Parts: sequence; structure tokens; C-alpha cells
Amino acid sequence: MKRIAVLTSGGDAPGMNAAIRAIVLAGHYFGLDVIGYRHGFNGLLEQEYQVLQTSDVNNIIQRGGTILKSARCKPFKTEEGGQQAAANLQALEIDALIIIGGDGSFHGAVHLSQFWSGAIIGLPGTIDNDINGTDATIGYYTAIDTALESIDKVRDTADAFERIFLIEVMGRHAGFIGLSAAVCSGAEQVLLPELYTDRLPDLQALVEHIQTAQKIRGKCSYIMVVSENIWPGGAADLANQLAEKTAIDCRPVILGHVQRGGSPVSLDRILASKLGAYAVEAARAGKTGIMIGERNQKVVEVPFEQTWLKTKALDPYLLHIQQEMFDLVKNSQ
Amino acid sequence: MKRIAVLTSGGDAPGMNAAIRAIVLAGHYFGLDVIGYRHGFNGLLEQEYQVLQTSDVNNIIQRGGTILKSARCKPFKTEEGGQQAAANLQALEIDALIIIGGDGSFHGAVHLSQFWSGAIIGLPGTIDNDINGTDATIGYYTAIDTALESIDKVRDTADAFERIFLIEVMGRHAGFIGLSAAVCSGAEQVLLPELYTDRLPDLQALVEHIQTAQKIRGKCSYIMVVSENIWPGGAADLANQLAEKTAIDCRPVILGHVQRGGSPVSLDRILASKLGAYAVEAARAGKTGIMIGERNQKVVEVPFEQTWLKTKALDPYLLHIQQEMFDLVKNSQ
Amino acid sequence: MKRIAVLTSGGDAPGMNAAIRAIVLAGHYFGLDVIGYRHGFNGLLEQEYQVLQTSDVNNIIQRGGTILKSARCKPFKTEEGGQQAAANLQALEIDALIIIGGDGSFHGAVHLSQFWSGAIIGLPGTIDNDINGTDATIGYYTAIDTALESIDKVRDTADAFERIFLIEVMGRHAGFIGLSAAVCSGAEQVLLPELYTDRLPDLQALVEHIQTAQKIRGKCSYIMVVSENIWPGGAADLANQLAEKTAIDCRPVILGHVQRGGSPVSLDRILASKLGAYAVEAARAGKTGIMIGERNQKVVEVPFEQTWLKTKALDPYLLHIQQEMFDLVKNSQ
Amino acid sequence: MKRIAVLTSGGDAPGMNAAIRAIVLAGHYFGLDVIGYRHGFNGLLEQEYQVLQTSDVNNIIQRGGTILKSARCKPFKTEEGGQQAAANLQALEIDALIIIGGDGSFHGAVHLSQFWSGAIIGLPGTIDNDINGTDATIGYYTAIDTALESIDKVRDTADAFERIFLIEVMGRHAGFIGLSAAVCSGAEQVLLPELYTDRLPDLQALVEHIQTAQKIRGKCSYIMVVSENIWPGGAADLANQLAEKTAIDCRPVILGHVQRGGSPVSLDRILASKLGAYAVEAARAGKTGIMIGERNQKVVEVPFEQTWLKTKALDPYLLHIQQEMFDLVKNSQ
Repeated sequence: MKRIAVLTSGGDAPGMNAAIRAIVLAGHYFGLDVIGYRHGFNGLLEQEYQVLQTSDVNNIIQRGGTILKSARCKPFKTEEGGQQAAANLQALEIDALIIIGGDGSFHGAVHLSQFWSGAIIGLPGTIDNDINGTDATIGYYTAIDTALESIDKVRDTADAFERIFLIEVMGRHAGFIGLSAAVCSGAEQVLLPELYTDRLPDLQALVEHIQTAQKIRGKCSYIMVVSENIWPGGAADLANQLAEKTAIDCRPVILGHVQRGGSPVSLDRILASKLGAYAVEAARAGKTGIMIGERNQKVVEVPFEQTWLKTKALDPYLLHIQQEMFDLVKNSQ
Repeated sequence: MKRIAVLTSGGDAPGMNAAIRAIVLAGHYFGLDVIGYRHGFNGLLEQEYQVLQTSDVNNIIQRGGTILKSARCKPFKTEEGGQQAAANLQALEIDALIIIGGDGSFHGAVHLSQFWSGAIIGLPGTIDNDINGTDATIGYYTAIDTALESIDKVRDTADAFERIFLIEVMGRHAGFIGLSAAVCSGAEQVLLPELYTDRLPDLQALVEHIQTAQKIRGKCSYIMVVSENIWPGGAADLANQLAEKTAIDCRPVILGHVQRGGSPVSLDRILASKLGAYAVEAARAGKTGIMIGERNQKVVEVPFEQTWLKTKALDPYLLHIQQEMFDLVKNSQ
Repeated sequence: MKRIAVLTSGGDAPGMNAAIRAIVLAGHYFGLDVIGYRHGFNGLLEQEYQVLQTSDVNNIIQRGGTILKSARCKPFKTEEGGQQAAANLQALEIDALIIIGGDGSFHGAVHLSQFWSGAIIGLPGTIDNDINGTDATIGYYTAIDTALESIDKVRDTADAFERIFLIEVMGRHAGFIGLSAAVCSGAEQVLLPELYTDRLPDLQALVEHIQTAQKIRGKCSYIMVVSENIWPGGAADLANQLAEKTAIDCRPVILGHVQRGGSPVSLDRILASKLGAYAVEAARAGKTGIMIGERNQKVVEVPFEQTWLKTKALDPYLLHIQQEMFDLVKNSQ
Repeated sequence: MKRIAVLTSGGDAPGMNAAIRAIVLAGHYFGLDVIGYRHGFNGLLEQEYQVLQTSDVNNIIQRGGTILKSARCKPFKTEEGGQQAAANLQALEIDALIIIGGDGSFHGAVHLSQFWSGAIIGLPGTIDNDINGTDATIGYYTAIDTALESIDKVRDTADAFERIFLIEVMGRHAGFIGLSAAVCSGAEQVLLPELYTDRLPDLQALVEHIQTAQKIRGKCSYIMVVSENIWPGGAADLANQLAEKTAIDCRPVILGHVQRGGSPVSLDRILASKLGAYAVEAARAGKTGIMIGERNQKVVEVPFEQTWLKTKALDPYLLHIQQEMFDLVKNSQ
């Protein structure tokens, strides 16, 4: 094996640069050339790349975003796109391609494998943590700390005014950010997609929870963490409807894309470093068609299909303490 | 003089606790009793208060929010409300009342002075910095750093995707947060209330600026800082309209109430400490009807009326460099 | 079971308050009284305590330190001390005692069990992560992020001046903070207690690594993370000796007690919440003589003796990538 | 005027990159070439430079350190050095040189002016704020927030253990960082160079202050901010001596070079942007031999000699409240 390539695809996540750095350092440790494709699969289609030396990854471990840029790329998923990508990889004599991204990126990886016989390795890079087979994804740890810092600030204001705030966090189909953010901010309520797969949250029950809370504690602050996509119109519309029903001021805060950026926290840098290094080792060992993840503090290899066939569950004990033991209504009876 | 009281009113701001602490420490230094009214003017109407010892303000200098709570209070502004407040202050034998808040709170102070002959001193506590007679208001410095940290994070994502983001910041009638946040985040565009007093921003001009920027630099990230209230429907609607016209993805990020909270930065703690201490000295010296502010690094006394009769202007040189010299279009011609 | 007590002992760690909160909330959920002893085992000896209501733990999840205070306590470890503590616990009709602390605190727990028949449960609270049987200790995650933030800042200066910095981190007998901080800051060198159990680091080898690094990369910044206690006189003396030998400026930075404080990061809050809640459940289930920890994302029960009889090992893969693959000298050959 | 050059010299400071960016953007706005010398005056002597395009300063406003690197340079201060520098500037046809640095750098500027007739403009870049003629220096605002964040963390631990901590901050000859950090952290004591110009602090008085504090408040935390260089052997030795005299645990924390790094806070970015832009305007207007500073929120021009001939004083009111009104001993009598 002489030459490997790396690209970042899909939504960006803090720690992608740490993963790129790890791949470049490990690649050079084993005497390999490392190529970086730019703009995700677009770069693969348009042969847009740069050679990555160790000096190129100096001091990027602490940077958010991705030095290789990312993008969505529809044409890649066609047969023609797959053939073009394969031709480009062959032209550069690439032996292995490492793809850092989420669910969609891994589907892209499998698509590519129909046209190209080189090794394809995936790294889970997404803040949503919604990839099966790995305990955490690169970017997830930073995203919950970012959400937490914002909610801690809102708590100051909520307390000062004894007000109700709805905080909308990312996680369209997965409540990992939502549940973690709720537990660690001491939120009074949390609405997660896993809990509302076939129905909407019950508005009346939400109103009663707020009212009971205020009976128990007197007027006080109340924070509800809401995953995006749970309520039609989002947290803003839900806030309006609650305000109407409770005659109490309810304010929405939409954390939005702030959650994707920022310097990665230590755990994301460590995870990215381990997975990136191991990806190079796996490629050298002739592995392909796998995502490198971490389970129970050990690096593991997961066939791409397994990353999406099964849905990773929320931590049931964490859910239990948030919904039961720490619930201020149940807690005070 | 034997007894002073303090309350926080209007929107909360980081540093209010530092101001309360300063008032309590200074009060005790001069041998005064210090009373804290809770929930702003509501506490005054309902005689809801607590005695404040120095031990009560231990370790609050670093806390966001306000230990005295805040609230809006409509009944206070009636004649009956003023009389009730005056009676309560007399009942407690308060000699001076220090009010920490914004514009509306100072109007409340003047209203109260019609019914009560004690000394009334104001401290400017609001993130918006929209109070004439003081270079900065308590909370403003923290708010711009909070906005900045979020925009820095969005920049990571914007860069990775070479995308356009609209960041909505607070400041309904004043562009201080908006201008500062734009300059220090290196934003490509900024929309401030001072620049659009009688018209909407020109959508076509905004589109052209974006398109010219992309011609000059190639595809790249582009950040527009937008003060709330500038565009009907806010930054979210403006993003939609820009996206339609440019056929480019435009994403809104609404910073919202996050900007009001958080541990105050050093300058807000210093400002609050100086103004709070001086407010007690002013009250002892028989002053009344004034806000304590800071101009050119000196503590100053400003009659309440002057705080709202004149509108404080944005820094013209800062506006000039943002709009002219650092404008990437003008800069590249 | 009617009444439980909690205390914090040994060095404080971020997340201790989150654990106290979890214990109080879970206690009240099960209808128990919760007593908080103050100043660690001292409070037990002197019957210094407070009743803890759910309102007492409002908004403490985000606070560093411990609302119950901590202390070292020598008299407790005598027979007389143990008897006094037992008598006090009986006088208050305590059924179970939960001790949040490190290694020394668990020895204290075992000592107490000789004199008192109530349930004794431990929670691992220490930044050092040096407790066997749990993947992480409460406070560890925050400590590495705190160290990391400081090292990131030093890197700015090191880069600007192309200078050598030695960063001394906590961890007298365990290199967890040191190794994690080194990997996630991209440090060029790391000195950990596990690697130097029977000898000092080889000064000449350190000098040569620096010199080779500078040959390879040209003049550049170089950061060495050093666990406290590795070198006689600490990082400051080591820096002096390196400077003498290399004729290059070497600066020490001693992070010190800054690492113990700060608002806990999300993972410490989550860990503390889970372990605290489970501790109450374990006590209700009649368990005693155990620490509650977390392994492989599951809450586990660990007999006290096992927490110290075996030494928890550093992650070998993390050590490998730091020492081998990411080593800039080995990496460039 | 066709071509300007810029360099950073002396200790680095957060915001130097923001100043470089402002100079490059303003330079291009006026159609000038901009050259960046590397490694301070060394680059000038060795003609080590790079052309700076606007794309080179994209996204550097938020970075600590300096992209142009800095260095100390002794040979420059000789006559030969001055002549060499002048020759190099002429060879590149530089019309104006902008020097970002502190006191020593401005002496270098004056030295250079004996040999070169081009315009020389200085920008105050140092965390110490010890330059006369400007209210603040670039980097100062960030440094006090960095110090503050660390002290806030130490306060957590100090409180938990009711312990005494000495925090050593930078500022060898100027107490700006020390005084600000003390006020905004609510420190119980502060030792500043301005207060001890001709003698050491009185150890016995320090001991008595601690003991009186503990009589008044009971056992509690106590934080003393100490400027470097005040006590022989630094805060570490002072802590030892206090511990001996008080028989109480006194711990030193040396903040060190952490204070120089980090992403600049908003005020440093704004100051750097204004001063950098104005420096280019001043050069175009034929000005030379001046530092650009800011006083009373207006950009000002200050002849180099005035920047060091007079010593800038600490804010007397800030000193007064810290030493008198907020002193917990005086405050409780």
C-alpha cells in the first residue's frame, strides 16, 4: 500500500480536523502518501485534491469545521458518478479511501464500492451520535457542551424572571443531544424523537406539568429541551401554543448551527485521534467496507450496513432518571 | 442616612449581581443597612424584600441573572402604584433607593420621585447599551462576547460548507451589539437599526453584495449580522428571501436569550463594581434623580431625563471601517 | 429505610454538586429524608449537618466545588473517631451514608464500617481518574478540558515565538490527565508516572528529541506535558535543566489548582447524575461496602477494596498513538 | 505611497492577528501592497517577509498568537542593525512600516528612524497595558478575562476547602492586570507593583489581614492576587512564608504564559481593528514617529517618546474600592 486518501462529507462536526490530522500522521508514520479530497464526494468527482504533509495538519487539532471542506453531492449517487469517482481514484493510484461523515456518507461509501476495488473505511463524524456500532460519534461531545453552555446562560435569565424557556436542539431523528443536554442542564422537561415516534407530544400534559411545577415550587424558572422536528413549526410554535394555554410567557431559543461549530472538546479530539489512526491501520491490514468506531473504550470495526440497519438506543437509565427520579412533579409527591 | 434599598428591574443583564454586591459592600462600609427588594418594582408594591448582609453577596460577582429577580410591572406606573411604593419605602425608613435597569426602569424612577422624597439613584443595567450618558451599560460587554462566541462557531460551519449565515442579535432600537459583533467576527455584512430608520434594507443590494463577494473570492462563507426587528419576520424570513433570490442556501441563526445570561466578563464586573460603589456615595452626598454612568473612564452623574432624551450614537469610526474599509467588495476593487 | 446522609471528602472535583443534587432528588423521589454532612468526615465527627430539601439543590448542577465543603480529617481514622462517627449517625437515625471522594475517602468508608452497621456507599469523585472499577471518575472530564484550554492558549504563544513549553498537570500517581491532555493538545512529548515508576526520565533523550524535532521541522513550538511529581523540583526545574542543555528558552507552566475548579462539563454532570441516583437505589436495595461506578456505559457496583487493590491502566492504544504514530520524530523518518 | 510593511515584535498578545488583518484590509482598500516581515525585527534584518493578500488574513481575527511570529532581537539595536534594516526596507521600496508591540518595540522604532526616512507607525500590542497615551493595549482585555476565568475556578476549590490561594498574574512593572483581576474576582487582597515601589509588602500585615478575615467571617476562602516580581521567589515563596506564619495552608497558583494566548475577546478585536485601520490612514497622511492609541473612545496619535516617558497610572477609584470599600476587614468594622 502506497497512497491513501481522505475526505469529509455531510454536516460538519467538531473533531473532523483532529481525525484528518490523525490520518495524516498515521499515514506518514507508515510511509504512505496522503491525499485530501476537498468538498466531500464533489472533490472525488472533480478530482479536486491536495497532497497532505504532516506540516499541513499542524495546529488543526483545535479547529472546528474541516480544512477539507464538506458538501452535499447528489450526482455522486448515480452510476455515472460512481464510475467517475472510481476512475479518479485509479488515476491517482489511491489504495484506500477514508470517509469521515454520517449515515449518508456511509451509503455513499457502499455505493462507491460497487465501482472501485480499493479499501473504503468510514469514520463516524456527526454531532447527532445517531450511528449504530459506536458509542459516540466525532463531534457529539462538543455539541452537548455547546448546547449546555447556552442552556446554562438561558437558565440565568429564566431564573431572574421565573420564566419558561423552550430550547430547541439538533437531532432530527435521534435524541442523544436532547437527552444529554436535558440531564446536564437540569431541565424540567424534555421532548425527544424516540418518545414520539407515532404521535405528537400531548399539549395538555405539558401544560399540566408546568402548572403543577409552579404549584409545588412557587413561581420559578422552567426549561424544556425540545429536539428539532418534534413539533410542527418547531419550538417557536410550541412556545406560542403553551403560552396561550398557560397564560404564562414562554420563550423559544433555537440553538441551531451554533451546535456544529467550535473548537472540539477533549473527548472529541481523543476519539478522532484514535479512530483516525486505527483507520489507517485497518486499511493497511486489508480491511474494507467498515466503519471504525469505539465501543466500551475499545476501537471496533463495524460493517457499513450495520451502522444504519439497527437504531442505536438512548441510555435507558439516563432516560429513567430524567423522566422519573429527577422529575420535579413525581419527585415532590 | 441609615438605610438604603436596591432593586433590579427590566431585562436582566450579566453584572447585575456584581452591582448588587458593590452596593451591599459599600453600604456596609459606610455603616448603612441595605435592603433588597425582589422582583423589581413588584417587590416595592408588595413590600417583598430581604435584608442584605455582606455574606449574602459572597461569590455572586461571577453569577449571571440577578439574586433579587427581575420583572416587568405595569401597576407601578399608575398614581396608585407610586403612592403604594412610597408608603412602603417610608414604612421601612429607606433613605435612598438604587434602581438597576434600563430606560423603562429610569422612567419608573422618575415616576416614583413624584410620590417619594428619598434619594433615587439609577444604574444602567441592560445588554443593549442604549442609554445615553454612559459609554457602556452593565451587561453589554458580556453580551457582545456571548454573541461573538456563537458567531465564531457558526463561522466554522459556514467555512466548511462555504455557506451564507444570517445571525440575528439583540438590540431592537440600538445597533451596539450588532455593530460590535459584526466587526469582531469579521462579518461580511451588517444590518443595524440606526441605518434603517425609515426604510427596509434593499434586498437587491444585499443579493448583489453576496454575488459580488462570491465572484471576487470564489465560493466562500458569508456572515451577515442582523439586529432583531430590522426585517419583518426577522432574520429567518430574510434568509428565505435571500435564498430565493440567490438560489444559494441561506441559514438563519437567532441568538435570542442566550445573550442575556452567562457569567459576566471582567469589564462588566469592573463597571458594575465602580458604579455600584459610587451610587452609595452619591446617595450619601444627597444626590437624587440621577443615573451613575461612566464616560471616558470616569464615573459621572447623569440626570435621568438625559438618559433617554438624546440617543447615543454608534462609534462612527467603527461603522466606517466595517462598512467601507473592511467591506470585501469595496476592498477588492 | 427512612433517612440517608451524604458527604464530600478529599480533594474537590467538578461534578460533586451534581452528585449531591442527584442523591437529594433520588432520595426525595423515594420518600427519604436526606442529610448533608459538612466538611467531609469532620462533619461526621462534630455532627455538623444540614437537612437537604430539593430546593437546596436547585441550580447547583452547574457549580464547581461542593456546597457541603470538603476537608482532610486525620482524627477520623482512629478507633475513637470511628466510634464517634457511628454514634453520631445513630443519633440521627441515618440508614445509609453516601461518601463522594477518592481513594482515601473509601479507606475512610471501610474504617467506618467497623463501627457502624448502616449502609455505606461510595461515589468516585476526584479529577485524577485513579480509581479502579470505574471508567471515569466525577471531575475527570472537566479537568482534562480545563487543562486543554490552557494548553491551547500556551500553544498560541509557543507558536508565535517558536518556543518550548513544559506544562505541569495534576496526577501524582496516575497519568490519565497527562495522557489525555497530551493527545488532545497535540503535544510533542509527554512524561507520565506510569512510564517512570523506577527511574527519572532520561534528560539526554529529552534533549535529543527536541533537537531532532527542530532539525526536522525547523524552529517551531514544542509542548511537553509533564505530570506533577515526575521530576524533582517539578516542571520548573526540568525546564531549567533542559534550557541549560539545549541553549533554548524552555518555559514551565504549572496549571495547579485551576484544574480542580470550574463548572463541570456535560459528561461529568451526566456521570454524577447517574451514579448519584443509583447510589440511592443501591442503598435502598440493602447494598453496602461498595463504590458505584460506570463501566462500558453501565452503572456497576464495586467492593471498596477492589477500587484500590488493582491499579487502573492507561488506555494502551492512546499511549501507542501518542508515543509512536504521532511522535513527530518517528513520524518523519 | 505604494507599499507598506507590518511586523509584530516583543511578547505576543491576543489581537495581534486582528491588527494585522485590519492593516492588510485597509492597505488593500487604499490600493497599497502590504508586506509582512516575520519574526519581528529579525525578519527586517534578514529580509524574511511575505506578501500579504486579503485572503491571507481570512479568519485570523479570532486566532491568538501572531501569524507573522514574534521574537526578541538584540542585533537590531546596534548601528549596524539599523543600517541593515534600512537597506532592506529600501530594497523592497517600503514607504511605511507599522510595528505592533510594546515599549521595547517602540524604542526599536525610534532607533530605526535614525537610519530610515520612511514612515514608522506603532500599535500598542501587549497584555500588560503599560503603555502611556492609550487607555488600553491590544491583548489586555483578553488577558484579564483569562486570568479571571482561572481565578473563578480556583475560587470553587478555595471555597470547598475554605483555603487561602495566592494567584500570581503577569505585569512585572504594571498592576493593570492584577488590579482588574482582583476587583472582578472579588479577591480579598491584592499586591501590585505600583504600591510597592520601594519596599516589600509587610508580611505581618498580610498575616493579620488573613487572621482578621477569618475572625470576622469564620473559616472561609481567601484569594490574594499577586503581580509577578513583587516578592522575591514569587507567589510560591510568599505562600510558604504565609503558611509558616499563619499555620494555615496557603497555595500558590502561577498563571504564567496562559495569559498571553487564547482567542481575543471582542474588545481586543475591536481595538485592534480600529488602530490597525487608522495606522494605514496615518501613514498615508504622512505621519511618522507615532503610536496609534485610543483615549476616551477616540483614536489618537502619540509621539513614541510620550509612550514611555510618563507612566500610566492605575484607575484611582478602582484602587480605592478594592483597597477600602470592598476590603472585608474595613467593611465589617
